[in-house]
Amino acid sequence: MSRKLKLGVLIHGVGGHVGAWRHPEVPVDASVNFDFYKTQAQLAERGKFDLAFIADGLYITEQSIPHFLNRFEPVTILSALAAATSKIGLVGTLSTSYSEPFTVARQFGSLDHISGGRAGWNVVTSPLEGSARNYGRDKHPSHDERYAIAEEYLQVVRGLWDSWEDDAFVGDKAGGVFFDPRKMHRLSHKGRHFSVEGPLNIARSRQGHPVVFQAGSSESGKRLAAISADAVFTGHDSLHEAQQFYREVKERTVAAGRTADDIVILPGISPIVGRTAQEAEDKYEALAQLVGIEQALAYLGRFFEHHDFGQYPLDAPFPELGELGSNSFRSGTDKIKKTAREERLTLRQVALRAATPRSPFTGTPEAVADLLTQWHAERGADGFIVHTALPGQLGDFVDQVVPILQERGLYRSEYEADTLRGNLGLPVPVNRYAASTVG
Amino acid sequence: MSRKLKLGVLIHGVGGHVGAWRHPEVPVDASVNFDFYKTQAQLAERGKFDLAFIADGLYITEQSIPHFLNRFEPVTILSALAAATSKIGLVGTLSTSYSEPFTVARQFGSLDHISGGRAGWNVVTSPLEGSARNYGRDKHPSHDERYAIAEEYLQVVRGLWDSWEDDAFVGDKAGGVFFDPRKMHRLSHKGRHFSVEGPLNIARSRQGHPVVFQAGSSESGKRLAAISADAVFTGHDSLHEAQQFYREVKERTVAAGRTADDIVILPGISPIVGRTAQEAEDKYEALAQLVGIEQALAYLGRFFEHHDFGQYPLDAPFPELGELGSNSFRSGTDKIKKTAREERLTLRQVALRAATPRSPFTGTPEAVADLLTQWHAERGADGFIVHTALPGQLGDFVDQVVPILQERGLYRSEYEADTLRGNLGLPVPVNRYAASTVG
Repeated sequence: MSRKLKLGVLIHGVGGHVGAWRHPEVPVDASVNFDFYKTQAQLAERGKFDLAFIADGLYITEQSIPHFLNRFEPVTILSALAAATSKIGLVGTLSTSYSEPFTVARQFGSLDHISGGRAGWNVVTSPLEGSARNYGRDKHPSHDERYAIAEEYLQVVRGLWDSWEDDAFVGDKAGGVFFDPRKMHRLSHKGRHFSVEGPLNIARSRQGHPVVFQAGSSESGKRLAAISADAVFTGHDSLHEAQQFYREVKERTVAAGRTADDIVILPGISPIVGRTAQEAEDKYEALAQLVGIEQALAYLGRFFEHHDFGQYPLDAPFPELGELGSNSFRSGTDKIKKTAREERLTLRQVALRAATPRSPFTGTPEAVADLLTQWHAERGADGFIVHTALPGQLGDFVDQVVPILQERGLYRSEYEADTLRGNLGLPVPVNRYAASTVG
Repeated sequence: MSRKLKLGVLIHGVGGHVGAWRHPEVPVDASVNFDFYKTQAQLAERGKFDLAFIADGLYITEQSIPHFLNRFEPVTILSALAAATSKIGLVGTLSTSYSEPFTVARQFGSLDHISGGRAGWNVVTSPLEGSARNYGRDKHPSHDERYAIAEEYLQVVRGLWDSWEDDAFVGDKAGGVFFDPRKMHRLSHKGRHFSVEGPLNIARSRQGHPVVFQAGSSESGKRLAAISADAVFTGHDSLHEAQQFYREVKERTVAAGRTADDIVILPGISPIVGRTAQEAEDKYEALAQLVGIEQALAYLGRFFEHHDFGQYPLDAPFPELGELGSNSFRSGTDKIKKTAREERLTLRQVALRAATPRSPFTGTPEAVADLLTQWHAERGADGFIVHTALPGQLGDFVDQVVPILQERGLYRSEYEADTLRGNLGLPVPVNRYAASTVG
């Protein structure tokens, strides 16, 4: 089987780019505008994308970036998009630190039924300390504790998804037999963090289990991905870094008793396409101009528990922060600290670089397609999750880059399947109980 | 203003009627069939119904009725229906005993944005003891405790819905001002059951607050309705009983400092329409024939904590149950015990009557319309939530009964508004913070 490239789109309202909302092309209410989300999802579906991705967070302050202040909750917007699309996968973030496995198993199971097998769940542990205060907890669990919770949580959810064997609902009208009670199973899980009896009150869906994504790149995140995730949403500045991550996660997945094909690795990219290289650079510059240093400092602060960077001189070396940030977005904050130290950057440089990163995927359609091809061929990625700062840039990507990838035979011209698993080339998990009957 | 009759539809898959799934007209997978839900919602929208209602439960056993075993989760199916409809309200059940107010405020807030102001939340406290075991709790809270939790929970959710004043998101692109921080408010709630800081990460929606329903008819349920609900989904066997409930809830609402028009009372009804009275009776009989005594006993058992009624002689008087059932569906179980005692019913009679109730709204379109008109005029109801055992019966109701109500000037021919509040005649709540600024 030829190894095709996969594509997803992060639909992100007014954007992860902190200044993009000021651009004339972006509706100021994009983050809560259903037509905006529907148009983006349908555009990606026209481009035969595997999936649309909705990110999330559980705590905001006055310093949060615009999109985070006022946005759709993932389960609701994904369910609405299910009714407005027919082939594209629908993946959303939901935290294992501040939710209940019975509810989450149901909501994603239900989304999988509604969409005919297109649901995916991105398992996160909530990086922001403040989340605890929105959920009546004394304390945000430590990074390691959060991942220990996530690991058990995911076992429970997968167990609940197996509550019913695929042929449990007989539906014999004449005989009056609605279901076969021998094919209904109670999980009766009693663990360190969760105690859940079951069964789930929804049948197993077409995908068996909705596709499980994992998005943390820390040591614990990679471990969770290797033992239990179907896909990883990651992010890298260079092909070299991407290759290291790719190799490590694939190796660890194999070490965990799975195959390298059981996990799909999808770095996020922010392509900017222009008719010429200069036009693409100009588009990037126009975006960067929309970001003031105050917004950049606030953006940076969010990674460090909303630390106030306004207290430091802008043009002095990046301040020493000690352990700050180690219990939030750890893989990100470690990288920021390391780069600042090694490249001797000032606070201003670090903040602007963080808030207005220049994607290597900036250039002509051919140049962008070449780089995608290279990352894919040289095992830096199985595919990519595209997040563009401006909605029109997704159109540029679909209309100009996708056809090149298709011509090269690297990317589908039609969907292979109508489930997300089918398109990602992932098998339907065998029901644990059905397996034990057969074996 | 003339007092128009309101209508809702309970979309309920294979049905609350325990034998209806065996009827040739019902798809056996109706409870997880999106096309079925979409068709029913669009049919009700063609009939200018105010709302579609999705019920819920959090615990099943082998004894549960078919629909409960395998059904959509409300938030997901309502969100999908939002994309498939444009005017009808979308109301769903979600329990305050086994969820987090921050998440629930977000999900219904998000649904309200997606649907353009058509969301409603039916507040329940989860009657089934077993729910606790799906949510890692030692013990299901007592009936009174559950309502105390619900009362505080609803205060928190309404507070979170006021996190942002309506004009908080300025969106000044030239000036670079996304929002006005003075119009963002932290709830900082610290109560007996919940501690929630806020603000919510989604703007106030068109309805201000999604419409809050309440569905319990116990003493605590009526209290919660009077102090905080916008609408009540209830159920009565006779006009006299409906009038008593109606009067009491309206009076208590006024006593709580609100007006009688601030709460809309909607009994559920199961109409069966025939061209003649005899045809309607025949349709009822055909449905009743689909229910065996075993199914009827299991149906009854669910109201009494899944009590096994198979242990009693069928034709002896209904057994003495003591306190059993008093911590689950209390208003229902009290009524069953009372009726059995007063009318000296056998177990068989009680079970069959419970599982195959014959609705008084059975007859010709004129007869059904007359009864609806009477209940409405004589203050037994502000409107009705229609749940038909067979999907075709909803069509009969829309095509045959609705036009009569319209001719009488009792029911709309076009939607008055495009929000649920607007159609129900309920005002948009003033934001608590905006009010304090003005006053």
